[in-house]
Amino acid sequence: MAPSLEYYEEISHGALPIKSIPTKINGVEAVAGLQLDQTEKHDQVLKTFRAFIADQCQQFGGGHPGGAMGMAAIGIALYKYVMKYSPSNPSYFNRDRFVLSNGHTCLFQYLFMHLAGFKSLTVEQLKSYHSDRYDSLCPGHPEIENEGIEVTTGPLGQGVANAVGLAMATKHLGAVYNKPGHTVIDNMTWCMIGDACLQEGVGLEAVSLAGHWKLNNLAILYDNNNITCDGSADVACTENVNDKMRACGWNTIDVYDGDHNVTGIVQALLTARISQKPTFINIRTIIGIGSAASNSPKAHGAALGVEDIASLKKAWGLDPEQHFVIPDEVYNFFDDIVPRGRQLEADWSKTIDGYSNQYPELAAEYKLRVSGKMPLDWTKFIPSKEQLPTAPTSSRKSAGIVCNPLAENMSNFLIGTADLTPSVNMTYKKQVDFQSPDFVAACGMTGDYTGRYIHYGIREHAMCSISNGLVAFNKGTFLPVTSTFFMFYIYAAPAVRMAALQGLQQIHIATHDSIGTGEDGPTHQPIALPALYRSMPNVLYIRPCDGEEVAGAFVAAITATSTPTIISLSRQNLTQYPQHSSRDGVQKGAYTFIEEEDFDLTLLSTGSEMGFTVQTKELLQKEYNITARVVSFPCQRLFEQQSREYKESVLRYKSGKPVVAIEAYAPNGWERYADAAYSMKSFGKSLPGPVTYKYFGFEPKVMAPKISEFVQEVQREGIQSLRGEFRDLNGTMGYGVQH
Amino acid sequence: MAPSLEYYEEISHGALPIKSIPTKINGVEAVAGLQLDQTEKHDQVLKTFRAFIADQCQQFGGGHPGGAMGMAAIGIALYKYVMKYSPSNPSYFNRDRFVLSNGHTCLFQYLFMHLAGFKSLTVEQLKSYHSDRYDSLCPGHPEIENEGIEVTTGPLGQGVANAVGLAMATKHLGAVYNKPGHTVIDNMTWCMIGDACLQEGVGLEAVSLAGHWKLNNLAILYDNNNITCDGSADVACTENVNDKMRACGWNTIDVYDGDHNVTGIVQALLTARISQKPTFINIRTIIGIGSAASNSPKAHGAALGVEDIASLKKAWGLDPEQHFVIPDEVYNFFDDIVPRGRQLEADWSKTIDGYSNQYPELAAEYKLRVSGKMPLDWTKFIPSKEQLPTAPTSSRKSAGIVCNPLAENMSNFLIGTADLTPSVNMTYKKQVDFQSPDFVAACGMTGDYTGRYIHYGIREHAMCSISNGLVAFNKGTFLPVTSTFFMFYIYAAPAVRMAALQGLQQIHIATHDSIGTGEDGPTHQPIALPALYRSMPNVLYIRPCDGEEVAGAFVAAITATSTPTIISLSRQNLTQYPQHSSRDGVQKGAYTFIEEEDFDLTLLSTGSEMGFTVQTKELLQKEYNITARVVSFPCQRLFEQQSREYKESVLRYKSGKPVVAIEAYAPNGWERYADAAYSMKSFGKSLPGPVTYKYFGFEPKVMAPKISEFVQEVQREGIQSLRGEFRDLNGTMGYGVQH
Repeated sequence: MAPSLEYYEEISHGALPIKSIPTKINGVEAVAGLQLDQTEKHDQVLKTFRAFIADQCQQFGGGHPGGAMGMAAIGIALYKYVMKYSPSNPSYFNRDRFVLSNGHTCLFQYLFMHLAGFKSLTVEQLKSYHSDRYDSLCPGHPEIENEGIEVTTGPLGQGVANAVGLAMATKHLGAVYNKPGHTVIDNMTWCMIGDACLQEGVGLEAVSLAGHWKLNNLAILYDNNNITCDGSADVACTENVNDKMRACGWNTIDVYDGDHNVTGIVQALLTARISQKPTFINIRTIIGIGSAASNSPKAHGAALGVEDIASLKKAWGLDPEQHFVIPDEVYNFFDDIVPRGRQLEADWSKTIDGYSNQYPELAAEYKLRVSGKMPLDWTKFIPSKEQLPTAPTSSRKSAGIVCNPLAENMSNFLIGTADLTPSVNMTYKKQVDFQSPDFVAACGMTGDYTGRYIHYGIREHAMCSISNGLVAFNKGTFLPVTSTFFMFYIYAAPAVRMAALQGLQQIHIATHDSIGTGEDGPTHQPIALPALYRSMPNVLYIRPCDGEEVAGAFVAAITATSTPTIISLSRQNLTQYPQHSSRDGVQKGAYTFIEEEDFDLTLLSTGSEMGFTVQTKELLQKEYNITARVVSFPCQRLFEQQSREYKESVLRYKSGKPVVAIEAYAPNGWERYADAAYSMKSFGKSLPGPVTYKYFGFEPKVMAPKISEFVQEVQREGIQSLRGEFRDLNGTMGYGVQH
Repeated sequence: MAPSLEYYEEISHGALPIKSIPTKINGVEAVAGLQLDQTEKHDQVLKTFRAFIADQCQQFGGGHPGGAMGMAAIGIALYKYVMKYSPSNPSYFNRDRFVLSNGHTCLFQYLFMHLAGFKSLTVEQLKSYHSDRYDSLCPGHPEIENEGIEVTTGPLGQGVANAVGLAMATKHLGAVYNKPGHTVIDNMTWCMIGDACLQEGVGLEAVSLAGHWKLNNLAILYDNNNITCDGSADVACTENVNDKMRACGWNTIDVYDGDHNVTGIVQALLTARISQKPTFINIRTIIGIGSAASNSPKAHGAALGVEDIASLKKAWGLDPEQHFVIPDEVYNFFDDIVPRGRQLEADWSKTIDGYSNQYPELAAEYKLRVSGKMPLDWTKFIPSKEQLPTAPTSSRKSAGIVCNPLAENMSNFLIGTADLTPSVNMTYKKQVDFQSPDFVAACGMTGDYTGRYIHYGIREHAMCSISNGLVAFNKGTFLPVTSTFFMFYIYAAPAVRMAALQGLQQIHIATHDSIGTGEDGPTHQPIALPALYRSMPNVLYIRPCDGEEVAGAFVAAITATSTPTIISLSRQNLTQYPQHSSRDGVQKGAYTFIEEEDFDLTLLSTGSEMGFTVQTKELLQKEYNITARVVSFPCQRLFEQQSREYKESVLRYKSGKPVVAIEAYAPNGWERYADAAYSMKSFGKSLPGPVTYKYFGFEPKVMAPKISEFVQEVQREGIQSLRGEFRDLNGTMGYGVQH
């Protein structure tokens, strides 16, 4: 490190003086190339960068210039001096992770990546921002599919939680695999945010957890320009954010001239690297600096205008007639990044070699983890049908029976819960909690970073957004499991969606589904939520009817390596159907549960309503002389992937016999497969589970006559009469809370 | 007030000594009946209360006893001494509002309401908790339908935001209607919370806003028992909560012996009443106090057991053989509440009389507001079709044209935005912002509590949960409007659901819907969200296709006085169809847009895809000799409410001609009405809006041949062949982000 640094006098509030910061951290240079006389060079980079951003937005008259322009000095500090990464190999495993939580400022990231030498981001690509090019690598928010992007951000606040997940990943892998003298993983996570990420609840949930876990390998860089769309940010937020962060267990550092003070930002970043807590760096910047729209919402989400950009360039001594100009000196300034990155990789490879010699078994497992492969054959941990209980068992209990051995033995499984440990049955043998190693709870609980059981607190949204970060760290290295009541996955829906969009595998254990959950009442009884997850692209919503199907659901979830799966489970005991249920059937989404040669109708059902369905079938036969076949239909999306022939073999439309869906949810979506539904169209009610079912007409003696009537009508009028007349058979629907 | 109070020496940290608290606040006694020698009486109430709660959970072996038992002393302070309410008229307008945000402790509220004299809550009713009685007034979480319950809580965190809404309601009405010497409204809002409400993001969002707005008529009572389901609360939360609250602009008070120190709690509550900020009262209690399970998660969500309860009663000198015992002395202790409440009402009526004499016009309007009636005839502010633009106009702009005059003139309209003022077009003439009157933003913005334009910041969930509180204050007094991009209503979904469950009217302006929003990319383009809101009971999701339909959407939303409505709007300009579109049609959910005598198929569409649909109809005619009629289908729920005859007249199934739905969302739900859909099955893509449509095959020249092929197949195979074969016609589906 250049000794000249200690002469710098601008010390940011809370940051250590440069000379107090170790020149090496874990044996590696902490900062490279920072010298006393760089101010002019920085200035040239800042001007070039800002003018380029303005040009990018101007060419198609849209985009978000202001934030990216304001953050330019932060970018120099990060990309040139502090962040450890390798542009020629963006997936270098021990790279620092960078999350742009204020994703609309994506041009910041794209342009610095270009300057740093990420090959795919050519000037032509930079110009494709907001263009009609299908192959653009510069979408309006960063997308994980593109080289060098760690995670897709967009909807605000979640990036903070993603960053917490990324930092946890490092802490956990380091605790498990690092050995004295062999640091195989120790990267930092840098999370860039704007005002919104500190206003959105999910960001605040994640902040609280990062402080609790003492994730000192995490730093938030707050682009504090005090401007949001509505005006100055204080229009809706006047809290003392530093005090708040400190109250949450964070180290805080102020940087006042964040527009130019590259060295001050470097100091702050280096202080973060050696902090004992996560670090919050509060950097004052000016949005759209240099523009006439600077320091106003106008600079946020619109092009600045030709004249404004010309005058801005003139003021900076740039040629207003020229666009997208990057002088050689600016490129040269970043010339050392690629070789430095290669050196980092080479050093790390050497570290891994030494580690492999000394700890061959651990290193072999580590390499599997790095490669994204399961450390063991998981199939052997899934119990066979014979090993499952035959007595009535709740499917949440079945989920425990299936998942606990996986959790115990598979080092990639991270089990989390939003404070429902006693309800979700996810605890396992030899469980260690993920906690800071010096932590002792009032109740005596302890843990350390090797722990794979995560207490997320009552923070469902952060739980799932953090899980996204855990997976994004390196696809396949972790398989996070989250757990809470199904209803509360409505809080987490924005995160489940982002997982689906990014192809991030995880398993969500959603217990207490349907009105069967009982006494907690309508606020806890999901009605419409399945319709969301069944229609959401790339999500498997699986609702198994017994232990065998629960096993099948886990097989499907583990097999779907680029898909989040929600396994929807009962609170109450369910009849087990070892004669009928099939884990292989689950893989196909639906399958024939009880076949009949000659039949009058097909009943299809899922989860905890299967019991009513089978009983209703029996009653229909006995009392109404109606023969029903039964289909178990745990997952619509998996069924959609089957062949036309298979679908027909299950639903047997060609028979001309009607199909009735039985499920205590809103019927929406079953219209694709059935002619009628016995379902719910109101919210639920607070009653004991079995009584709730009864209240809403889920009783064979109530269901059978309704279905019989329908079958007779079809026999009378012909199956064709049903077109455009999907029938809601549950006459008790609407008994619930009505207005 | 009893002078003896000042002798009390237990002063809670941060609370004023009793003698420093004014005996009267706004001319009314601040506390009634608190005397020096009450400790024994309190003790008897506490024991009686706690034993009763234990009995309630024991009878059916379930429920949540621990929290309610721990909070007993808080209940005495509130219900006996400080809270202003009238059990004989629970809807007395100027009552203090009480929100039980930790709703699982509902027995706390039910039993104190019983003791205070709420007639409907008999002992028999108290015993119906967790019973199979359909008419129980004691559901597992408090429900707004029941007398004396201000708001339905359940999913945690939202109660805090509801309470913020309730407090805002008072501030606003007070600022508009109170006059010197005539305080017609000045109630407090007391919000009881547990740990979860401080962990959930929505609670934290609301806390930040309450501090910003200086809602000094709001107090949070934190039942700090440091126990959650997973163990001690510090297992997942070790922040300094008082510091955090102070950083957010709150006054904080500690009460250390919250199990017994009724006077200390009273002091804290009275201090809150005269604070200049919202007040956070951090009350240490012991969950399940007296039980062997006390201070452990076991006391949270299960009955304590017969033996434990017997031993608890013995220790307290109660008869273990007796259950549900409330001695006369305990009833007598609360005897003054009903007459005190009547007196409050009488005083208030007198105030209103005096006010009516001096300010007759204002009083007349106020009385309308109190009665829940609109202050003016709103229909006159809705522009006629002739007044609407005929040039292409985005539907978000149309929404502004329709809503702005309503906002300007209707004093019950409260317009809010989650920091998207420049995008959602909801600003209006003579707008005043809702702000603390002493507030001046850095950008110069000011406001006061009369303001009806609310900057919620980037906090969608709090925005909608707060709106629920605003409506719950008194149904019909306010009609909150919220606004943000449609995609971000996934963050607010838990709150929209609670509004639907409670029948709380509001209008959600959801702009930038569908892939048409363009460059921001897939993170901002909703695909599955409509399926959630279309299946959610008691929600109107309306997607108008032009300005006339936007007017119709507002008419429907304002008419639906017990229903939240989401109006889904385009970012981009849309062709206007004054020849075809109909506001009356919107009221029926769907209507014939373009009729044809002889036709080959029916096309149905919504919103911004109507333009493609009409163009495709024309192309089908011209190039394929296929005649299509067109149906506009802005709202599935409204259509469901129509007669079978009307439905047939719109969709004309009996013709035997196929129906094709065209919408750039997931097809789920259209299967009820259509035989095929041209829709989206993947997430979107970052491209300019028109190019995104093109990328996903939403172009007449791509759509027409696909639809023509389908029509020919139906003509060949017969309409019956379609059963069980719902067709996804968009072959380009799945071009998007795939894994």
